[in-house]
Amino acid sequence: MILKEINSFCKGRVTGRRLYAVPKLWVPKFFKKFDEKSGKYFVDPYEFGAEITDWILSQSEGLDYSQPLSFLKGERAPNWVRESIVYGSLPRTTVAYNHKGSGYYEEDDALGFREAGTFFKMILLLPFIKSLGVNTIYLLPVSKMSDLFKKGSAPSPYAVRNPMELDERYHDPLLEGFGVDEEFKAFVEACHILGIRVILDFIPRTAARDSDLIKEHPDWFYWIRVEELADYAPPRAEELPFKVPDEDELEIVYGKESVKKHLRKFSLPPNLVNPEKWEKIKEAKENILEAIIREFGLITPPGFSDLINDPQPTWDDVTFLRLYLDHPKASKKFVSPNQPPYVLYDVIKASKFPGEEPNRELWEYLAGVIPHYQKRFGIDGARLDMGHALPKELLDLIIKNVKDYDPAFVMIAEELDMEKDKAAKESGYDVILGSSWYFVSRLNEMKKILEVSEKLVLPFLASVETPDTPRITTRKYGSRLKRLSPFITYFLPNSIPYVNTGQEIGEKQPMNLGLDTDPNLRKVLSPTDEFFGRLAFFDQYALHWDNPDKGVLEFIRRLIDVRNQFTDMMIEGEYQNLSDDELLMFSYQKEKRKLIVAANIGNSQKTLRISGLVWRGRMWEKKRKVTLKPLEFALIFQS
Amino acid sequence: MILKEINSFCKGRVTGRRLYAVPKLWVPKFFKKFDEKSGKYFVDPYEFGAEITDWILSQSEGLDYSQPLSFLKGERAPNWVRESIVYGSLPRTTVAYNHKGSGYYEEDDALGFREAGTFFKMILLLPFIKSLGVNTIYLLPVSKMSDLFKKGSAPSPYAVRNPMELDERYHDPLLEGFGVDEEFKAFVEACHILGIRVILDFIPRTAARDSDLIKEHPDWFYWIRVEELADYAPPRAEELPFKVPDEDELEIVYGKESVKKHLRKFSLPPNLVNPEKWEKIKEAKENILEAIIREFGLITPPGFSDLINDPQPTWDDVTFLRLYLDHPKASKKFVSPNQPPYVLYDVIKASKFPGEEPNRELWEYLAGVIPHYQKRFGIDGARLDMGHALPKELLDLIIKNVKDYDPAFVMIAEELDMEKDKAAKESGYDVILGSSWYFVSRLNEMKKILEVSEKLVLPFLASVETPDTPRITTRKYGSRLKRLSPFITYFLPNSIPYVNTGQEIGEKQPMNLGLDTDPNLRKVLSPTDEFFGRLAFFDQYALHWDNPDKGVLEFIRRLIDVRNQFTDMMIEGEYQNLSDDELLMFSYQKEKRKLIVAANIGNSQKTLRISGLVWRGRMWEKKRKVTLKPLEFALIFQS
Repeated sequence: MILKEINSFCKGRVTGRRLYAVPKLWVPKFFKKFDEKSGKYFVDPYEFGAEITDWILSQSEGLDYSQPLSFLKGERAPNWVRESIVYGSLPRTTVAYNHKGSGYYEEDDALGFREAGTFFKMILLLPFIKSLGVNTIYLLPVSKMSDLFKKGSAPSPYAVRNPMELDERYHDPLLEGFGVDEEFKAFVEACHILGIRVILDFIPRTAARDSDLIKEHPDWFYWIRVEELADYAPPRAEELPFKVPDEDELEIVYGKESVKKHLRKFSLPPNLVNPEKWEKIKEAKENILEAIIREFGLITPPGFSDLINDPQPTWDDVTFLRLYLDHPKASKKFVSPNQPPYVLYDVIKASKFPGEEPNRELWEYLAGVIPHYQKRFGIDGARLDMGHALPKELLDLIIKNVKDYDPAFVMIAEELDMEKDKAAKESGYDVILGSSWYFVSRLNEMKKILEVSEKLVLPFLASVETPDTPRITTRKYGSRLKRLSPFITYFLPNSIPYVNTGQEIGEKQPMNLGLDTDPNLRKVLSPTDEFFGRLAFFDQYALHWDNPDKGVLEFIRRLIDVRNQFTDMMIEGEYQNLSDDELLMFSYQKEKRKLIVAANIGNSQKTLRISGLVWRGRMWEKKRKVTLKPLEFALIFQS
Repeated sequence: MILKEINSFCKGRVTGRRLYAVPKLWVPKFFKKFDEKSGKYFVDPYEFGAEITDWILSQSEGLDYSQPLSFLKGERAPNWVRESIVYGSLPRTTVAYNHKGSGYYEEDDALGFREAGTFFKMILLLPFIKSLGVNTIYLLPVSKMSDLFKKGSAPSPYAVRNPMELDERYHDPLLEGFGVDEEFKAFVEACHILGIRVILDFIPRTAARDSDLIKEHPDWFYWIRVEELADYAPPRAEELPFKVPDEDELEIVYGKESVKKHLRKFSLPPNLVNPEKWEKIKEAKENILEAIIREFGLITPPGFSDLINDPQPTWDDVTFLRLYLDHPKASKKFVSPNQPPYVLYDVIKASKFPGEEPNRELWEYLAGVIPHYQKRFGIDGARLDMGHALPKELLDLIIKNVKDYDPAFVMIAEELDMEKDKAAKESGYDVILGSSWYFVSRLNEMKKILEVSEKLVLPFLASVETPDTPRITTRKYGSRLKRLSPFITYFLPNSIPYVNTGQEIGEKQPMNLGLDTDPNLRKVLSPTDEFFGRLAFFDQYALHWDNPDKGVLEFIRRLIDVRNQFTDMMIEGEYQNLSDDELLMFSYQKEKRKLIVAANIGNSQKTLRISGLVWRGRMWEKKRKVTLKPLEFALIFQS
C-alpha cells in the first residue's frame, strides 16, 4: 500500500524541526507537536504527515484500498450516493497555504515547500474533512493542465492537456522520490480507509489548445489558419433566437455570408497538409502546437458556446475534439464537398446533430479515460462535463465501460436543469448537478426548489454555492443565508448535501465568475488582501484558513451530523410539502417517526404548535411549540 | 553597431505574414504595412522592426552611439538635464501587449511572441516616445530579478538578484540568436541616435533574498536561523517616536528585551559556520539560498524600514547588504562581543550610524555597478535608490566613479523631501526626485509647490504621478487635474518634466500602492478588465494601449511641445511668483520676452487683463485679456 510507504518515508524524515506552517484547522486534536509563533502553527511536516497517516492507517482493516470502495463493500449498484455528503474541492486551492509562515503566498517557496495544493496535503486535510461529516470528495479536474492561452497567471483546471495524466504540479516536493501518480493513489487509499469515496471530474468534449493528443492524432482536432485567429468567433445570425439551432434553421445559418466566411477559415490537419513535414515535426521536443503554428501556420481554434448569438467570449483555453469524421448529417447538403472539418453550432452539439462516421478511435480513447482512473486509482465516481453535448452512442459507451468495471460507480451529469432528470437517468447517469444554489440563495425562489426536488427521479448535488457561482455568504441576506440555505438544502428530497470548498469557513471570494454572477464579486475581499481580485480557476489562490468564519464551520459540522442521523428517513420515509405563503416547511415520515424541516421566509414571526425535539443549529431541545422569527429555522423530530 | 545588426536580421526575416498585433499608437505614420482586424493592428513583426529601425538609423550621423550622448556632444557637465523631458518606464509593463491579438494577455504566447515587455519592443516604441517630445528615458530597474518571496505572480523589479546582469526576460524571442545585453545595447544606441538619453535605476543598499552575490560573498549578507523567520520583524519600542533613532536613544533601544531577542536570531554566515560544507554547497547548481536553508538552516532576513515603530510590513523580497564588517560605532558598547552581524534601525541607516570597518570589497563592487553600465551600454544617468541611507564615503565613491568616467553623467537622488536639495547637491547629486506629485494633485496644496520649487538649488523630476503614487486621473477632480496638473508642474521653476508611463494615455491603475495611496485604488479598473486588481510592480500588467485617453495624449504632446519652446526662458529668465488667493500665477522674463503661467484654482471666474499670445491647451491665440473659469489655465506669451 502506497500510503504505508509514504507513512514510512515521513517517519524516516522526522527531524523535529518545526518550520512548516499549517492552518490551525488542519491540526487534528491528537497532534500536539507544534509551535505557535505570531499566531501561526509550525510543525515538522514529516512528523505531521507521519502522525496523520498513522491515524488513517490505524483505521485500516487491511484491505486493498486502491480498489473502488464498492469492491470492498461488495456493492453492485450506486445506491451509496444517496447517503453521500460531498465535499467539492479544487486541490490547488483547497490546500494552498503559505507554509513558510511569513511574507506572501507563493506557489513554491525558498524553504522548498510547495505552497500550492498537492495530493499529499489533501491527505493531511482528511482529519478536517472527516470532521465535517463528509463521506465523499469530489475533485475538480486534476489532470495535466495547459499553460497556453491562460486567462490569469495559473492554468485553468478545465484546460486539459492530457486526460490520462495527473498534473505534475500536484506532486509534493516534501515526498522526494515519489511521483504524482503514487501520491494520488495514496490519497484515494487514505480516503477509502476513512470510508470516503472519491469522485473525479472529466471533460470529454474539449481539450487544451495544445493537447498532448495532437502529436499522435492531429486529425482528432479542428484546424484554422493562424491568420484567422484574430477575428475567429462564432458567426452571428441575428434573425435566429438565442439557442442551439433546430434542423429547419440550418439552411438560414449556412446561407449566411458570415458563416461561409467562417467555414473558409478551416484547414485540413497538418498531417494531411504536408505528411513529410508532419513526420519531422511530431518528433520535436518543443510544445507541439507552437511547432505546428510555426511550420504549418495552423492552429487549433478556441471553443465557443453552442447557442447562437451567445454574447460570451470565445473559450480561449480549450478547443473542440472532432467526434465525427464527416460533417453533421443534417448539414452536409449546405457544405461544399471539399470543406475541411469545421466547428459550428451544430457540429459541437453532436448529441443533436450527429455525423454518420463516428471517430471510433477517439471514442474508444475517450471511453477509456475514466476506466483508466478506476483501474489505476480505484476512484468511485465521475462527473462528466458537458455530457449533454456528446453523441448518445459515445455517452452510452462511456457509461457502459465505467459500469462494466464497477456497477456501483456513480456518474454525475453536468445537468443544471432539474427538469432534465429523467433524460439524464435514461442516459445512464446516477446523479444530476441541479441548480439548488440558484433557488436557495433567493428568499422569493426558495419554495420552488421543494416542488422541483420532490419530483426528481435522480438525486442531485444539493448545493448553496458551487465553484462557478457566488459564495452564499456574499448573497443578499448572506449573513443569514449562510446557515439558513444549507439547512434547507441539505434536507431537500433527493438531496446529496454538497459543501463547496471554502463554504465551510465562510470564504467570500468566488472561484470563478461563471454562473448567476456579477463582475463586482471580484471586489468582495479587502483590497489589502493578497488574493484581492484573484479567481481560483485562473490564479494561484489560497482559502482564508487563518481567518475562518468559526460560526459557519461549527454550524456546518452540526448540520451534517444531524443530517447523517436522518438519511434513512429521507430516503425511505414519506415526504410531504407543508409550506404556506411565508413558511417553508416539509416533512419525512417513516412509521412513527416524523422529521419536520421548517423555516420562516416571511416578514413576521410565526409560531408552530408542534411538539417534539427541536434543533435550531446547536443542541436538541424538547419543546411544545416553536417560534420562528423571520429567517429563523428549526428541525423538529417526533417519535 | 548592434542596432544595424538587428535591423539586418529583421530584414532577413520579413515574410509579410501579419500575425503580430500592435497597438495603433505604436504604428508610426510612415508604416503602412498593417492589416486591421477586429479593431486591432496586425503587422509582420520583422517588417515592423525593420522599418522602425530603418527610420532610426536614417537619423544616424555615423557616430558610435554606444557611448553616453555626452561623449558624442563633447559635454563635460550634466547641464543637459535641465533641458530634459523624461519618460519613466518599467519596460515589462510599458511595452506589454497581447500580440496574438485575441484571447487574454500572456507573458509568452503560443505564436512564440513575448507579450511581456522586451528591450526590442522598447526600440519599436521609440517613434511614439519621440512623438511625445521626450528626450530622456528613465527605466525602473531592469536587472536580474528574483523569483522568490514574490508579492504577486511576477517578480518585483526592486528585488535585484544580480545588479550586473540584465533580466533575461527582457530578451525578445523574435530576435533569435541575440541576447538581452545586445538588445539593451541596441536600445541605448537607438535612443542616442534620436537624441534621447537613457537613465537607469540602481539599488545599492539591498539585494534579493537569493542574490547571486551570496555564492562568492556570503559574508556580504546578514543571516538568521530559518526557525526565526516566522516572527522576524523590526522590534518595537513604543517609548520612542516614529523616526530613525538618535544616538542618545540607542541605549533605550538596545536595552529592550525585544531587541535582545531580535539580536539572538542572527548567525554567522554559512561559510564561517561550516567552511567545508560551504565549499561543497557553493558549487551546487540549484538556487543558492535554497541550498543554504536546507544544509545550514540559515536564511537572509527580510528588509524593514529604518524608522522605529513603522507600521509597514517587512520587505519580504529584499535583504540588506552588509556595508560594515563591524557593528555601528555608536552601538558597539551595547552589543555582546560575540554578537553575529545583525540588522537594526541604526545598522541600516549607515549614513547616520557608520561602523569603523567598511566592507571595502563590497563597496568597490557597488561602486563598480553603474560604471559597468556606462562602459558597456553608454547610459547617461542613474537614479540611486535609498542613497540617503548609504555611508557618505560609499556614496562619494559611487558618484566619483561615475563622474570620473563621464563628468556629464546625471545622478538622481531618491530624495522626496524638497528641502533636502542642498544636502543632495553637496552629496554630488544633480537632480532630486522631489514630491511635486503630492502638491499638484491637491488644489489646496498646489500653490505651495511654487515656493518650494523656486528655492531649489537642484532641478527636480516634475511629476504629477510616479510609479509609486496614484495616477493623476484618479485623483479628486482628476478629469481636470490630468491636464491642469501637468500644465503647472511642467512649467515650475527648476522642473524637469516627467511623464510616468501610462500617464500619457490616461491609465488609471497605479503601478504600486507605495506613496500617498489608498488600497481602494486597486479597484479603479472595471472588474471585467483582465488587469483588475493587478499592480505592475508585482504582476504581469499591460497598459491599456487599445483604449487610450486620446484627449490627454494630444494635450501632453502639445504641452511638451510648448514647454520645449520655452526651456531657455525658464532656465535663464527671471522668475516671479504672481499668485494670489485663488489664482496660481508665475512668470519668467528674459529681456523683452515674458512667459506667464496662470491657473484658476478658486471657485469663481477670473479675468486677467493681460494681452499676448495665449495657449490654453490647443492653438495659440492673440488675446487682449484672458478669462479663466475655475480650474482653467492659460499660458501667456508677451514679446
